[in-house]
Amino acid sequence: MTLSTTRQASAPQILDRCRELVRPALVESVSRLHPWHAETAAFSLGWSGASGEPAPGSQGKGVRQALAVLGAEAAGGSGADAVGGAVAVELIHTFSLIHDDIMDGDETRRRRPALWKAYGTGPAVLAGDAMFALAVSTLAEAPGPGGAAAVRRMAGALGDLVRGQAQDLLFESRPWTGPEAVLPREYRTMATHKTGSLLGCAAALGAVLAGAPPSTAQALDRAGRHLGVAFQAVDDLLGIWGDPQVTGKPVHSDLRRLKKTYPVLAALTADHPAARRLEALLTAEEPLDDAAARRAAELTDAAGGRRAVVAEAREHLASARACLDRAPLAEGARGDLLTLIPYLVDRTA
Amino acid sequence: MTLSTTRQASAPQILDRCRELVRPALVESVSRLHPWHAETAAFSLGWSGASGEPAPGSQGKGVRQALAVLGAEAAGGSGADAVGGAVAVELIHTFSLIHDDIMDGDETRRRRPALWKAYGTGPAVLAGDAMFALAVSTLAEAPGPGGAAAVRRMAGALGDLVRGQAQDLLFESRPWTGPEAVLPREYRTMATHKTGSLLGCAAALGAVLAGAPPSTAQALDRAGRHLGVAFQAVDDLLGIWGDPQVTGKPVHSDLRRLKKTYPVLAALTADHPAARRLEALLTAEEPLDDAAARRAAELTDAAGGRRAVVAEAREHLASARACLDRAPLAEGARGDLLTLIPYLVDRTA
Repeated sequence: MTLSTTRQASAPQILDRCRELVRPALVESVSRLHPWHAETAAFSLGWSGASGEPAPGSQGKGVRQALAVLGAEAAGGSGADAVGGAVAVELIHTFSLIHDDIMDGDETRRRRPALWKAYGTGPAVLAGDAMFALAVSTLAEAPGPGGAAAVRRMAGALGDLVRGQAQDLLFESRPWTGPEAVLPREYRTMATHKTGSLLGCAAALGAVLAGAPPSTAQALDRAGRHLGVAFQAVDDLLGIWGDPQVTGKPVHSDLRRLKKTYPVLAALTADHPAARRLEALLTAEEPLDDAAARRAAELTDAAGGRRAVVAEAREHLASARACLDRAPLAEGARGDLLTLIPYLVDRTA
Repeated sequence: MTLSTTRQASAPQILDRCRELVRPALVESVSRLHPWHAETAAFSLGWSGASGEPAPGSQGKGVRQALAVLGAEAAGGSGADAVGGAVAVELIHTFSLIHDDIMDGDETRRRRPALWKAYGTGPAVLAGDAMFALAVSTLAEAPGPGGAAAVRRMAGALGDLVRGQAQDLLFESRPWTGPEAVLPREYRTMATHKTGSLLGCAAALGAVLAGAPPSTAQALDRAGRHLGVAFQAVDDLLGIWGDPQVTGKPVHSDLRRLKKTYPVLAALTADHPAARRLEALLTAEEPLDDAAARRAAELTDAAGGRRAVVAEAREHLASARACLDRAPLAEGARGDLLTLIPYLVDRTA
């Protein structure tokens, strides 16, 4: 018996196909930058190292460009319709990682030095700005009648993105407990803004550029935002329990830095003795040493923080699927989206 | 005898009128930011101090918003047509100052701490990004048929702006003399990009939003770019010979930091003994102490650097005027532009 999914491509195949479709336009767009910024862009996109040498394995998955391409196809258009939007969202994502690493003081990104470590803080600020400006240019010049609506949509997502980053930065200075503590629902809102807005925008931009009605773009946007929350939840799980070989970060890195993450915030709300012991640990020492970080991870798990966040990721993944199931989408692209989304969330969590 | 200029407003009156016209929309736009970013925006716009207290005298002149308003009026429209563009260019200008101060390590801005000194580098990077995103949003949502063309034009100016900043940053690592030395014409190109592009864009945006034909917008853009070069030339003169009471910067500050500026680059190209002595001074010590900086200023003057840059400013001012004279503009606004432009350049140089 042959199922209807027989011809369905795998998630890596979908990502590869979209990357190949978008790549020439992304290369052309980057080539319009000042040569110095073309170099920092190539470094940040994982195309080359700090001395311009090839850097195999340093590229991101290209999630956002794939969502843009599939958004256009889901709206009954061609992936080519989405290319300007796909380039723009990849550039915006890269810009946000560059500035994020400066803000968080993160020294590595995909097992290589962060751009600010390789080139200096000032140049990295400017390199991010150059990619931001290029993203706006590329989208503003995208052909077709959807261009102006696409720019408005990306501008809105950008506003949400920086709002989420502000929320995240401000969480750091708030206490772990008491009336000023960060609530799990505040964290969810932050993740929707910081991670979900651009994922939603990516899928919606593709649809808008392919001439989709607003309701279709809206459904894709909502699916992308749910994906973003699920993605952030899994990211936080990996930041505590992930294999350093896979994540490229030291074990327990988020805990050692006393970063406010979803599992810990969820654990602290539990009515469980482990939650109180976790609270005592987090508020007593700063920063945590190896043993204390390991203990904090155990207590977070014992208080149910890990379980709560796995459930949260599953719930948002289901909501993303439901958005896609209900929208009037072309079947092939819907299938690709339904293949891709769980693959992105399930990163050996 | 009554001259036809009798009813012409003064430059400060023009700036005040335009500021008042734009202010409500700028306030409304900033209020859409995350509260933290609304606070950093109010600080950066000179509306309040770091603790939210009023900060009289800390506002910029609002040159770019005025050019946008006058651009719309010059194209036969109303200043109100330009408001979305005026807000966008003020936000972009403020964003670029915030990030510039980080890149240059400048600790003060308009006699107050730079944003990064008051709030930290990471928050200042993000505050700039928030204003950048808000500028794109505001312009993308500007009503009227010129919106899409306005976004394309601003995106182009943004690309030029970051290109100019890259050129400026890279000048710092080049030698004062020899085949790798920065040539005065390279400096002019940098100034056109870094300072001229946004001034030109401001005036052109107003025209585009008022429905002007491309040729009118182009003439206003060119005038703004010439203004930018003249402005940068005078800025450099003030950075060496300006009164610290007026500039708000220490005397000879650019020389002490060995910053490559127009008067010094022009002096070094002169066939004059003072040029060779200046060269020896600049390449021997790092950074210059007070006495050496004073000596470098004297030698720059003796080699003709000051004279050359005054001539350069005058020439670009004349070119800006010529662009305005030749373009088919409404007479009242043309008069205002011709009043405003020399006022902006003549800052007691």
